[in-house]
Amino acid sequence: MSLRPLGDKVVIKVKAEEEKTVSGILLPGSAQEKPQQGKVIAVGTGEIVDGKKVPLDVKVDDEVIYSKYSGNEVKIGEDEYLIIRQADILAIVE
Amino acid sequence: MSLRPLGDKVVIKVKAEEEKTVSGILLPGSAQEKPQQGKVIAVGTGEIVDGKKVPLDVKVDDEVIYSKYSGNEVKIGEDEYLIIRQADILAIVE
Amino acid sequence: MSLRPLGDKVVIKVKAEEEKTVSGILLPGSAQEKPQQGKVIAVGTGEIVDGKKVPLDVKVDDEVIYSKYSGNEVKIGEDEYLIIRQADILAIVE
Amino acid sequence: MSLRPLGDKVVIKVKAEEEKTVSGILLPGSAQEKPQQGKVIAVGTGEIVDGKKVPLDVKVDDEVIYSKYSGNEVKIGEDEYLIIRQADILAIVE
Amino acid sequence: MSLRPLGDKVVIKVKAEEEKTVSGILLPGSAQEKPQQGKVIAVGTGEIVDGKKVPLDVKVDDEVIYSKYSGNEVKIGEDEYLIIRQADILAIVE
Amino acid sequence: MSLRPLGDKVVIKVKAEEEKTVSGILLPGSAQEKPQQGKVIAVGTGEIVDGKKVPLDVKVDDEVIYSKYSGNEVKIGEDEYLIIRQADILAIVE
Amino acid sequence: MSLRPLGDKVVIKVKAEEEKTVSGILLPGSAQEKPQQGKVIAVGTGEIVDGKKVPLDVKVDDEVIYSKYSGNEVKIGEDEYLIIRQADILAIVE
Repeated sequence: MSLRPLGDKVVIKVKAEEEKTVSGILLPGSAQEKPQQGKVIAVGTGEIVDGKKVPLDVKVDDEVIYSKYSGNEVKIGEDEYLIIRQADILAIVE
Repeated sequence: MSLRPLGDKVVIKVKAEEEKTVSGILLPGSAQEKPQQGKVIAVGTGEIVDGKKVPLDVKVDDEVIYSKYSGNEVKIGEDEYLIIRQADILAIVE
Repeated sequence: MSLRPLGDKVVIKVKAEEEKTVSGILLPGSAQEKPQQGKVIAVGTGEIVDGKKVPLDVKVDDEVIYSKYSGNEVKIGEDEYLIIRQADILAIVE
Repeated sequence: MSLRPLGDKVVIKVKAEEEKTVSGILLPGSAQEKPQQGKVIAVGTGEIVDGKKVPLDVKVDDEVIYSKYSGNEVKIGEDEYLIIRQADILAIVE
Repeated sequence: MSLRPLGDKVVIKVKAEEEKTVSGILLPGSAQEKPQQGKVIAVGTGEIVDGKKVPLDVKVDDEVIYSKYSGNEVKIGEDEYLIIRQADILAIVE
Repeated sequence: MSLRPLGDKVVIKVKAEEEKTVSGILLPGSAQEKPQQGKVIAVGTGEIVDGKKVPLDVKVDDEVIYSKYSGNEVKIGEDEYLIIRQADILAIVE
Repeated sequence: MSLRPLGDKVVIKVKAEEEKTVSGILLPGSAQEKPQQGKVIAVGTGEIVDGKKVPLDVKVDDEVIYSKYSGNEVKIGEDEYLIIRQADILAIVE
């Protein structure tokens, strides 16, 4: 089973909220609009900009930071996924 | 009798809310904006983007996840249908 | 006497609210934003999209479902009409 | 003395509110957003759509229905005029 | 000293509020959004529409009606001026 | 040290609020949205309109009137500067 | 480890809030919407304007002033970073 996001949408596997990331980024726990981190699982076919479909900038396996209250949460088994518009992704962690 | 949705609208046969889906996706029951799942019954003729009509990405029989409070509910006999804009569909389940 | 709607507007002859339709669609009576059904009486000359006038998708005599709180009501004799933008029409019943 | 409306604006001579119109349209007295009727007195030079000036669809002497709380009222002597954008005119009565 | 308004802005010399105008227009004193009258003192270089600068429709010395709560008031000596966008001017009085 | 504003932004050296200006403009002290006056110190490279960069209309040393609650205030030593979008500048005083 | 911001987003190393900057700019401590200063650490690939990707105006190592409540804060070790859209950057300090 897999999720195929539409258009400019991206499926993200969410990291646990308090976890300190491998790269050492510690996400604030009480900020009103706190960013979060996760790994890209699937990407949509692209965003339509002025009539042309532009491929998304993020790719599968990218580790990304995004705004917390963006997107819609989906739960598969024990894992939480987030379906988010690419515009709500802030940066790729390298 | 059938429904022919206009433009970028899609008719969806709604799954019962607490039901665990075949694919194992369990939708949260209390989230403020909870996604839901259903099967596409009919699709509109397309979305007008910059003056050209672009066919929709979803097709009849696609199983899709969408934002819960999107769209308008219609009841035919015992079944609930949802008429929703494609932009409110998050992903196709495969 | 007749009404000639402007642009993307459509005149609809409203069905009584609790009535079960011929096609078996029963519209919910208490929903916050409940769809409704009616017959198209007159259509505008079209919607201007990117500088070109695009004819409307609905035609006179189409039976349509629309969002309840859309449009403006007009009463002629005993009949209620609704003048609505095509964008607020959800689907055609066939 | 006359009023020359700008762009997409239209000057309308308002009908008295409770009056039953010649065409038999009786406008509701208590609706939250009730339509009204009047005669077009003057029209603007047109609406700019995608860089081109498009002439208005209504003409002087057209009897029109519009949304009540649209536009700005002006009083000349005993008569009430309304200066309204064409987009707030719903239909022409014929 | 003079004011040179930018872009689509217009400088208007405001008429006293209760004054009955020469043309006989009496402006309502208590309306929520009451139109007002004044004379155009200076006009901007034009409005940019789809990448081209379009000259304004009003000219210096035009007597115009505008929405009351539009624009910004400036006082020079005893006179009140209003700097307003052309879109908030309703009609020219002729 | 100097400030180089981005895009359509303009740096303005603010005049003291109650001061009567050289040109005799007295700005109201209690108005809800009161205009103010200042001198342009630096201008951005221009505004992007339909894909092309359009140079700004105001130049360094222009004395301008702008809407009070626009922009962001910056203090350098004793002087107050305002960084404002050109769209919030109403007129040039000549 | 590094952050690669998407599109029109910029990563900024934030200056301590009360600190008087090298250039002598003292940022107000109690203003409702107070600007702030920082150094650009990474910039996105550009902003899409009318279908074309336009490179950003700010570069790595630029010292910039931005609106305080813009963007999303990220903490790496002891340092605070801000991921902000270029449109929320007011000026470059030179």
